[in-house]
Amino acid sequence: MFVNTRCWTIEWGDCDPAGIVFYPRYFAAFDTSTACLLEAATGMKSARIIHENGIIGWPMVDTSARFMAPASYGDFVEIETRMTRVGRSSFALEHQLTKDGQVCIEASEVRVWAAPRTDGAPGIMGVPIPEPIAARLRAE
Amino acid sequence: MFVNTRCWTIEWGDCDPAGIVFYPRYFAAFDTSTACLLEAATGMKSARIIHENGIIGWPMVDTSARFMAPASYGDFVEIETRMTRVGRSSFALEHQLTKDGQVCIEASEVRVWAAPRTDGAPGIMGVPIPEPIAARLRAE
Amino acid sequence: MFVNTRCWTIEWGDCDPAGIVFYPRYFAAFDTSTACLLEAATGMKSARIIHENGIIGWPMVDTSARFMAPASYGDFVEIETRMTRVGRSSFALEHQLTKDGQVCIEASEVRVWAAPRTDGAPGIMGVPIPEPIAARLRAE
Amino acid sequence: MFVNTRCWTIEWGDCDPAGIVFYPRYFAAFDTSTACLLEAATGMKSARIIHENGIIGWPMVDTSARFMAPASYGDFVEIETRMTRVGRSSFALEHQLTKDGQVCIEASEVRVWAAPRTDGAPGIMGVPIPEPIAARLRAE
Repeated sequence: MFVNTRCWTIEWGDCDPAGIVFYPRYFAAFDTSTACLLEAATGMKSARIIHENGIIGWPMVDTSARFMAPASYGDFVEIETRMTRVGRSSFALEHQLTKDGQVCIEASEVRVWAAPRTDGAPGIMGVPIPEPIAARLRAE
Repeated sequence: MFVNTRCWTIEWGDCDPAGIVFYPRYFAAFDTSTACLLEAATGMKSARIIHENGIIGWPMVDTSARFMAPASYGDFVEIETRMTRVGRSSFALEHQLTKDGQVCIEASEVRVWAAPRTDGAPGIMGVPIPEPIAARLRAE
Repeated sequence: MFVNTRCWTIEWGDCDPAGIVFYPRYFAAFDTSTACLLEAATGMKSARIIHENGIIGWPMVDTSARFMAPASYGDFVEIETRMTRVGRSSFALEHQLTKDGQVCIEASEVRVWAAPRTDGAPGIMGVPIPEPIAARLRAE
Repeated sequence: MFVNTRCWTIEWGDCDPAGIVFYPRYFAAFDTSTACLLEAATGMKSARIIHENGIIGWPMVDTSARFMAPASYGDFVEIETRMTRVGRSSFALEHQLTKDGQVCIEASEVRVWAAPRTDGAPGIMGVPIPEPIAARLRAE
C-alpha cells in the first residue's frame, strides 16, 4: 500500500491557551496529509483529481486518534500516512505523527469516494474509485 | 452520569468546497460541548474551573467519530453530550449530533485532567479530578 | 441603514497561547455577524438567499479592524453590525465588538454580491443586489 | 527594512462553499508570515523570541486588507512581507499575496510587542522592542 510522509511546522494559531496544539487542528493536518498521499500516488493535484472524476472529494466516514504526547508552537513534526485498505468506493488510512522520532499521535480513518447524488435528492453518495487510481493507492 | 445538550448553527466558515462541514470543525464543536457539560455540571465557567484548580484544561487522549450524514451551511443541529466514565484523573464522554432528529455523528472521547508537570520538566501530566467535581460529573 | 446585534461566547479553540482570541477568529465572527444581519434584514436564511439569487455569496473586498482590548476564553461579547452603504453590487458594514460595554474592536468591510462569471472563464464577478433586498438593507 | 517571502499551498480546509479561501484564513496566513519574518530577521525561532524576551507575543493592533482576486484549493501562492516601521514598542508590516505573479491581496498591519501587565491587573501592555531585535527588523 502507498505511504507518504510530509512535514508540518506548528503555527501560533494552531495552539490553544494551554500552549499546545488544539486537537481539531491535528485532524485538519491529517486531512491535508491524506490529500498529499493521493497526490503523491496519482501524480495529480487533488483539485484536478476531484474535477476530472466528477466527485466532491473524499469525506470522512470514521476516524479515531490516540494522543500520546502534545506538540507546541514552532515544533517541527512529521506525519507518515499509509493506505491500509482500498475498497470499491471507500479507502482507509493511518497517520502517525512524530516529533524528534517520538510518536505523538496515531490516527486511523475511513473515507468515501463521493459524488453528488444522481437520483435528484440533495446529498452525496459513494461511487466506485476508478481502477487506475485504486491501483496506484495499492502500490507498494 | 451527567448529560447536557446544546444547539449549534453551522456557519459559512465551518464548511468546505463540497458544501458540507469540514470534519475537523465537528471536533471543535465537540470540544465546546465538553466544556458546556462541565459548566452545566459544576455551575462554574470553564475558565474559572481551570483557574481555581490550577490545571491547564482537559486535553484529549483518545477520540473516535462516525460520520453518518453530512451537515451544511445554516443547518441547525443538536449535540447531546453524555459522561460515560469519571476516573481518577481522566474522564470519558460521548457526543451525538442530530439534525431534525436524524443522527449525523456519534463520537466518543477520553480526556485527562491535566496540570503542568511539577518535576521541573516541561510538559503536562494528569492530576486527580477533585472529588466534588467528579461527584457532579457522575450525577444523573 | 439596518443594524443587527448578536452575542458570542469566546471558545477555547478561538484563543491562542497568549490566552487571548487569535485575531483571525474575530474575522470569522464578523463574517457570521454579516450573515446574521442579512438574515435579520431579509427574513430569509443565508443559505436560501444564496440559493434563490444564484450567487456564491458576498465575498470580502476590503476590510480593516482596530483592536483596542483583548478578549479571552469564556468572555461573553456583543457584536453590533451596521450597514453603512448599499451600492449596486457591493455593500459596506461596520462591526463594533464590546465586552461589558467596553469597545474591544471596531471593524469595517466592503463586500460584493457575487455570482459565477458568465463569460465561460473561471472566477466570480459582482452582480446587482436585487432591489427588494437592497431596500431592506437600507431600512432603518 | 527587512523583507521576507514564503510560499503557501491552499488547503481544502482553508476554502469555503464558494470554493475560494475563507478570508479569515488569509489573516492566519499573514500571522504566520509575520512570525516567519521575525525568525528570518533575528535568526531565532519565534517561540524562543517570545520565551527569551518575557513577552506574550506581538498581538494585532490594527490591520486592513484589500482582496483583489480569489485563490482556491490547491493554489500555490507567495506572500511577501515587508517591515514598514519599527517603533519603540510597536511595528508595522505589509503583506502582498500573489498567485502566478498576479496580486491577489494587499494587507497592512500594526502590532505591539506585548508583555503581561506588571501592575497586578490582568491584561497585557506594550513594552520596548529590544534594540538588537529592532535593529535587525530595520535592516535592508
